[in-house]
Amino acid sequence: MKQSLGAKIMAGAVPVWVVGVYDKEGKPNLATAAWVGVCCSDPPCIGVSFRKATYSHGCIVDRKAFTVSVPSVEYIKETDYVGIASGRDGDKWQATGLTPVKSEIVDAPYVSEFPLVLECRLIHTLELGLHTHFIGEIVDVKAEGVILEEKGNVDILKLNPFFYVTGKRTYHGIGPQLGKAHAMGAELRNK
Amino acid sequence: MKQSLGAKIMAGAVPVWVVGVYDKEGKPNLATAAWVGVCCSDPPCIGVSFRKATYSHGCIVDRKAFTVSVPSVEYIKETDYVGIASGRDGDKWQATGLTPVKSEIVDAPYVSEFPLVLECRLIHTLELGLHTHFIGEIVDVKAEGVILEEKGNVDILKLNPFFYVTGKRTYHGIGPQLGKAHAMGAELRNK
Repeated sequence: MKQSLGAKIMAGAVPVWVVGVYDKEGKPNLATAAWVGVCCSDPPCIGVSFRKATYSHGCIVDRKAFTVSVPSVEYIKETDYVGIASGRDGDKWQATGLTPVKSEIVDAPYVSEFPLVLECRLIHTLELGLHTHFIGEIVDVKAEGVILEEKGNVDILKLNPFFYVTGKRTYHGIGPQLGKAHAMGAELRNK
Repeated sequence: MKQSLGAKIMAGAVPVWVVGVYDKEGKPNLATAAWVGVCCSDPPCIGVSFRKATYSHGCIVDRKAFTVSVPSVEYIKETDYVGIASGRDGDKWQATGLTPVKSEIVDAPYVSEFPLVLECRLIHTLELGLHTHFIGEIVDVKAEGVILEEKGNVDILKLNPFFYVTGKRTYHGIGPQLGKAHAMGAELRNK
């Protein structure tokens, strides 16, 4: 018997991504987001949501571009800091020691130290309430060679990402491989 | 030095959710989705994306409601099956042994055996290309008491969710707790 918890964000564990933007003056800024997700395969699109009150919100509206840098556990403190500080109050790059790299294809910076980067141009903006939902088309993905496998896929244990647990507000790492998608369930086909 | 991988979905690991819908005749159907995410805190909203060709796509359009049931690793084979079969070809409930429960507050069924359920009413539909992005307002969350902690939060290790690795198409479990969000980075504040 399930119990009602009310209307809230209680959805398990979700990815933690760091969004890079330029402000009006061309100063790079960073924001940590967990209200994120893939939303289309073709064109490849992702969504990231920000409160209107955040500095990054205005930057995305102005520049119509953003990057997503996927942090490794190695940078979990820096990533958390980026989520609790505001670009209005100080330079997050200086505080964290992270290095901005100007994307050559979208008008936004990414994090040099993070091994996986998605460069996006803004294609949709949807006002939902407290958050604005920005949908970006991925125009390129860039990765450090050290996290790549032979076939060009990311080795998730080398990327070593982490997740935000909704409700309890903790971070958890990734666990072991459990199996192959679109294969494990095949044995149920003829039941 | 990062290498370019091209414009594709290569974003690390993302949550695996099972979406429940009724079709026009009131028959319950299930679909596994990894193109999902939280997208607003107030009202609490999540997004799920489906290809137009899927049976569930039409059901969401017709019924303007869906549920998300978050599967535990215990049901990974059933969840994978739900992602590779079509509701047009047979009854996924019968093949998996999963049990539909009619939501009392939205026009959609959820999975009895899965410990966490989000009941949603459709509030936005966005055509992105191959996928349609459906945004649902969470009107209630329901959970089995056995996965809840004292404060009413979900114990993520008891929920025991799993993730889909984009690119390589594998499933991975959740790892250990790494720290408290909005706290770990505080020490960088005065750097």
